[in-house]
Amino acid sequence: MSDARPRGFASDNSAGVHASVLAAIAAVNHGHALAYGHDPYTQEIEARVAAQFGDRARAFFVFNGSAANVLSLRAACRPWQGAICAETAHVNVDECGAPESVAGVKLLTVPSADGKLTPQLAEQRIDRIGDEHVVQPRVLTVSQSTELGTVYQPAELQALAAFAHEHDLVLHVDGSRLTNAAAALGVSLGEASTAAGADVVSFGGTKNGLLGGEAVVFADPALADGFLYLRKLTLQLASKMRFVAAQFDAYLTDELWRRNAGHANAMATRLRDALVGIDRVRITRPVQANVVFASLPAEAIEPLQREFPFYTWDERAAEVRWMCAWDTTESDVDAFAGVIRRQLGASSA
Amino acid sequence: MSDARPRGFASDNSAGVHASVLAAIAAVNHGHALAYGHDPYTQEIEARVAAQFGDRARAFFVFNGSAANVLSLRAACRPWQGAICAETAHVNVDECGAPESVAGVKLLTVPSADGKLTPQLAEQRIDRIGDEHVVQPRVLTVSQSTELGTVYQPAELQALAAFAHEHDLVLHVDGSRLTNAAAALGVSLGEASTAAGADVVSFGGTKNGLLGGEAVVFADPALADGFLYLRKLTLQLASKMRFVAAQFDAYLTDELWRRNAGHANAMATRLRDALVGIDRVRITRPVQANVVFASLPAEAIEPLQREFPFYTWDERAAEVRWMCAWDTTESDVDAFAGVIRRQLGASSA
Amino acid sequence: MSDARPRGFASDNSAGVHASVLAAIAAVNHGHALAYGHDPYTQEIEARVAAQFGDRARAFFVFNGSAANVLSLRAACRPWQGAICAETAHVNVDECGAPESVAGVKLLTVPSADGKLTPQLAEQRIDRIGDEHVVQPRVLTVSQSTELGTVYQPAELQALAAFAHEHDLVLHVDGSRLTNAAAALGVSLGEASTAAGADVVSFGGTKNGLLGGEAVVFADPALADGFLYLRKLTLQLASKMRFVAAQFDAYLTDELWRRNAGHANAMATRLRDALVGIDRVRITRPVQANVVFASLPAEAIEPLQREFPFYTWDERAAEVRWMCAWDTTESDVDAFAGVIRRQLGASSA
Amino acid sequence: MSDARPRGFASDNSAGVHASVLAAIAAVNHGHALAYGHDPYTQEIEARVAAQFGDRARAFFVFNGSAANVLSLRAACRPWQGAICAETAHVNVDECGAPESVAGVKLLTVPSADGKLTPQLAEQRIDRIGDEHVVQPRVLTVSQSTELGTVYQPAELQALAAFAHEHDLVLHVDGSRLTNAAAALGVSLGEASTAAGADVVSFGGTKNGLLGGEAVVFADPALADGFLYLRKLTLQLASKMRFVAAQFDAYLTDELWRRNAGHANAMATRLRDALVGIDRVRITRPVQANVVFASLPAEAIEPLQREFPFYTWDERAAEVRWMCAWDTTESDVDAFAGVIRRQLGASSA
Repeated sequence: MSDARPRGFASDNSAGVHASVLAAIAAVNHGHALAYGHDPYTQEIEARVAAQFGDRARAFFVFNGSAANVLSLRAACRPWQGAICAETAHVNVDECGAPESVAGVKLLTVPSADGKLTPQLAEQRIDRIGDEHVVQPRVLTVSQSTELGTVYQPAELQALAAFAHEHDLVLHVDGSRLTNAAAALGVSLGEASTAAGADVVSFGGTKNGLLGGEAVVFADPALADGFLYLRKLTLQLASKMRFVAAQFDAYLTDELWRRNAGHANAMATRLRDALVGIDRVRITRPVQANVVFASLPAEAIEPLQREFPFYTWDERAAEVRWMCAWDTTESDVDAFAGVIRRQLGASSA
Repeated sequence: MSDARPRGFASDNSAGVHASVLAAIAAVNHGHALAYGHDPYTQEIEARVAAQFGDRARAFFVFNGSAANVLSLRAACRPWQGAICAETAHVNVDECGAPESVAGVKLLTVPSADGKLTPQLAEQRIDRIGDEHVVQPRVLTVSQSTELGTVYQPAELQALAAFAHEHDLVLHVDGSRLTNAAAALGVSLGEASTAAGADVVSFGGTKNGLLGGEAVVFADPALADGFLYLRKLTLQLASKMRFVAAQFDAYLTDELWRRNAGHANAMATRLRDALVGIDRVRITRPVQANVVFASLPAEAIEPLQREFPFYTWDERAAEVRWMCAWDTTESDVDAFAGVIRRQLGASSA
Repeated sequence: MSDARPRGFASDNSAGVHASVLAAIAAVNHGHALAYGHDPYTQEIEARVAAQFGDRARAFFVFNGSAANVLSLRAACRPWQGAICAETAHVNVDECGAPESVAGVKLLTVPSADGKLTPQLAEQRIDRIGDEHVVQPRVLTVSQSTELGTVYQPAELQALAAFAHEHDLVLHVDGSRLTNAAAALGVSLGEASTAAGADVVSFGGTKNGLLGGEAVVFADPALADGFLYLRKLTLQLASKMRFVAAQFDAYLTDELWRRNAGHANAMATRLRDALVGIDRVRITRPVQANVVFASLPAEAIEPLQREFPFYTWDERAAEVRWMCAWDTTESDVDAFAGVIRRQLGASSA
Repeated sequence: MSDARPRGFASDNSAGVHASVLAAIAAVNHGHALAYGHDPYTQEIEARVAAQFGDRARAFFVFNGSAANVLSLRAACRPWQGAICAETAHVNVDECGAPESVAGVKLLTVPSADGKLTPQLAEQRIDRIGDEHVVQPRVLTVSQSTELGTVYQPAELQALAAFAHEHDLVLHVDGSRLTNAAAALGVSLGEASTAAGADVVSFGGTKNGLLGGEAVVFADPALADGFLYLRKLTLQLASKMRFVAAQFDAYLTDELWRRNAGHANAMATRLRDALVGIDRVRITRPVQANVVFASLPAEAIEPLQREFPFYTWDERAAEVRWMCAWDTTESDVDAFAGVIRRQLGASSA
């Protein structure tokens, strides 16, 4: 399907579905299949997903990333336990309180400049252990890649995992963009998460070319105890599960996930590079995955948004976010960079 | 796509996706769209769905029927309020406690022989009103068509609505199979629910040919106050919403919903009729929608299930459930009836 | 303190505080004590309470009986698990949904004629085990004595415990009136509960002479894991705990609980006996503890209530409840019986 | 009652019960009273409490301060709404997550140096209003006096109330030590809270001489809609309510609350004054209510604690908290100051 309109930079959620994914859905659309994931096909694909994360891993499909994160936290915590996270973490600022409200998990936040946690930062919340008046930390949750476009090196994750396990914490990776991290690092999905010590992973698909589907992956099957019930009662059990499984089938085949994510990452780099030399555009954060943050003259933002949709990240700092997706094209990037240069490059001449 | 294997009678959730629905998904798969339902296309389709249920109605898409029901109840209730339902209601027996656990809504159950409620039955739970020790009824929830394959006549719904409103209750219709009811009654979706007085409807699509998508519809927009937040925090906000909207677009176009549901209903009637005269098969409930209940010799159940999957409904009574779907064919029915007749008809000769 | 007014028969919650209990409160009212139950005195009394229920038992004080029950259920259940109970159980009909709302525990009700459960009745709810769509039974909860004034014999409890443990259920005893049962049976508190196999007990004090205080007792300390947190986050941790402990100190001293409960039981028997021969008063249930149920001519209820407060139990059946308390006197009973006889005995002459 | 042992400085929760309070409990301990607060005496005292806070105010007794705060928040919030508070607020750091877990209310924290909020600080959390992904602020909650011993002037509260109401927020005062603030300011309870614009107040009694009892007070009765149910289902409804009411009866009589709180405040001032000139003790915060914060040489803390119990507030800063209670005596203070001077004053000579 051709589309004359260029794509914007608002969100990787604005992108469409990869053709292979639609094809995989169509390919399983025949006959009847047991509902609720009890069909052999879904079970085969769940096993293939799990295998990316280790020999003993177990994977469960859910509808969206919010659910993957909330269910990961809930699976790990008893009612008095909480999760340490960065103040900027998606679970803290973009889930309308679902971790607390649905899972009963209080978030123990830590300020972080670049969206990443370290053992040193997390240690601030290892406090008053054993005091019944205080929510007890049980999970350390990090985003890979982060909301600020940064990527944890495997060694950084290993340090976090060592810290977590020393304090009897579960390390959870919010991997709604795990594929972007793995592609950026040139490693496998497991190497970007469980092989480095993560215990639970929200493995994202929707932002990277699926129609809609995420997986919760437990490195250790003991953590998955009761998860089938938890998924069902939290309203995340799809009846026609084969159509979620089919999406992951396509996603794993020939590493579609890596091709898509690697492309999105490359587009972000291309955009950053294309803006070099424009004095009034300052790239504000390292570009490690599929997003570029920049500060602009405040009055320039709205005119740009009229041509290419994107979001202001921090109004006070006039910092904007330009997100690239699996379907962002080189010509999208070049056209956008051209507009920026026209509007902001001139006065620097 | 051809498929040599016949379809079973286990569940309408076992069926596939109607070709028009996949085509509609593909048709919107181009370019970028605002995420989370803020794109104009989703808003147009939401309005079209809402319009089926009245001029002032509002519709919201969610992932599955569990969520549609739980969110309907939660939207209507404050923390001390509950919902009157039949003991056999899906919300009571098949949601793993989600209404109570996620929405905090206690179910006030009433025994019902045929799955239907009446004002007389519901009145049993209008008790101790104003007593702070007791959950106060706030919702009357009925399934249309019911879990037992029965259909409320509009006049029956009107009586329930009058009763509900007299007692300051909201009338909710679990319409995961509303289309089967409307097709059976030969009326519109609204006539089978809101026009008869229902205030909130879970309007189902997944069981009747969609890939995955349901809608919560409020007849009165005042009941929808805050629902966007409620949907989000209950993990039911799809990011790529246009692909849910597209399914409903196809569903409403030329009343695909009615064609699909009417066909499923007809297949149930055909199955019932084909079994007339087999002494050892007793049809146990009126066939009004897309399901046939029957009792058989207990030892006959498993051999039949090996040829065509279906579920035992009541083990003690040797009562089975044969569910027809939008994609059940006449030859599926005839083949199944033939198998039944071969196994159970002989001895009656 | 003298009081010319007689006491009514509305509730044992209407009674006052035993003088020994007030004295015990005053006796510990000196100096400072560590708050939140960490003072040595509270710990000593907790141990004394626990010792009534077995060598390994652990006891925790809470504010009221609602909390004791809800926390008992919550301690035993994971989010997808529920509790089997009689339809008439206090937790089901008088807690405004707290088990579901606060603890997320769905109640799996069973009709019961006399308020008591049996393994046969409970077995109805051992259904669809392992099916993720269904709340899984985890607790069997019974009231000792029951809301209908009946008492479980130790052998009946043993049978329930054997059944429970066979199905991997925890047996919980709602013992808000455990003392009345133990006094009626002439056994210890443990013999009326944990020695017969109960795993968790809500041990009541308030209805039997305390100012306000209940205990949750776990026969096996493993079940108490994390309970300090659970108590705190469920808003049941008293700061000045020594004053709750003091009440239980008095309660255990010289078995005040048995003296009070035995007296209340005797008053119920006395009332029942005093009504023999009044044709228009029919005792409707066995009087085994501290309550008498009776049916009267409907028009006689209100005139009687004006002289002695009591509640109508079942309006349709004109069945009333006369509850005796630790402070009900023989002259209260005789005066009440006299009034009844005057109003209802005449016409039978 | 004489007690040779001096009182410590750990907590006002360590103190005993004022003799008038015990006397009031004994005074109502006769006859039967309707349970659950429906007796005329409780209703009279509730009205007296409410009247402290305005003509239209309504008051409800609960067991403890945790519950008063959590129920205040829950009464004001719908499931997607949250409460702005200081990071150091008791609700945030000392309730084991109850606001989130029991009430489903996310706390939107703001750093604050002295425990107090200002409109400027609170405004940071007025962000993304109307965005369904974000918990929407609905309550502004402040502690009067604060956890750090500071007191809001009425004008400061008025500014907060104006800010709150401008943003459609409810102003809640955690008044577990409201009496200390009112005594310090020389104003009435209302002037220290509702007259300055607070909409809901947790009015504390336990820390200031009661046995156990707090009240939730709504300045506007519309906010109390449904509160009886909310209190019941949150396990905070006392059965023998007259004994809670009696405590408040004594508390209001001749302003016992002011005498007790004023005395505690005076003891804190006396302690602060007694430490002037000891170089190694630095008073770290203004002493405005009943608590003194000080920093000491770290190695001096434990030896002091062996003589008089108190808590370390901030281990890293070697900052300690000395809390005075209604029953702290001048000789307690002088003895404690003497010990401190002996241990820490010498080296400064």
